[in-house]
Amino acid sequence: MDGVILTPLKQIYNPKGDIFHAMKKSDSGYDGFGEAYFSTIHKGDIKGWKKHTKMTLNLIVCLGEIRFVVYDDLKDEFFSVKLSHQNYQRLTIKNGLWMAFEGLGEDNMLLNLANLEHNPSESISVNIDEIKYNF
Amino acid sequence: MDGVILTPLKQIYNPKGDIFHAMKKSDSGYDGFGEAYFSTIHKGDIKGWKKHTKMTLNLIVCLGEIRFVVYDDLKDEFFSVKLSHQNYQRLTIKNGLWMAFEGLGEDNMLLNLANLEHNPSESISVNIDEIKYNF
Repeated sequence: MDGVILTPLKQIYNPKGDIFHAMKKSDSGYDGFGEAYFSTIHKGDIKGWKKHTKMTLNLIVCLGEIRFVVYDDLKDEFFSVKLSHQNYQRLTIKNGLWMAFEGLGEDNMLLNLANLEHNPSESISVNIDEIKYNF
Repeated sequence: MDGVILTPLKQIYNPKGDIFHAMKKSDSGYDGFGEAYFSTIHKGDIKGWKKHTKMTLNLIVCLGEIRFVVYDDLKDEFFSVKLSHQNYQRLTIKNGLWMAFEGLGEDNMLLNLANLEHNPSESISVNIDEIKYNF
């Protein structure tokens, strides 16, 4: 889907505890640094829909498993992917796309490395049933 | 300790899963973005000692509990702090200081938001018993 990039990330074994890459400045999808925050999502819960008008999201699942669904309202097109340490990739979502995500594991956490600091005026939220998708 | 900053971070309640702040571009301690990665550490294991000659570390514990120990070899001075969601703060460590960390919980993970991409030539590692500290 235009505006969506999936980038496989390295996991480096260490006998005392592994290392998991998230993002480098030189990576494709990096669009500047504004803010980093974690979001947790309980099993079976869905956060969304939200559309950012300026922010590029760079999402990494650091705990559990999360299903992401992206919707392009201009093309009426959906994109979906389940991410976890088993399928360890960074999901880049450019501005202008709708996004929702669902907790699949017992405990689920993502990191968002965003190019802008949080600003409620640059995002639009609608209820989950406003955009029909079979989660 | 000079070169060490502890910054309390917001935790925002959400019925579907809480939000945990990590870092904003406008925060004190932010020194540019180079790379973000996760490091896990098993209970009772210690990673260290390592000294970065150029990198500023910004460390956030996103899972479990981790004890950090910082050593200033010019002043022969130690600093120690235990971080977790219960004591949710960002630990900034400027270059030139030695650092080690120990896993205290069952599962422990930190995020490092570093100002440089990983480059093994800018860090020095020594065995844990080379700098005496009673972990």
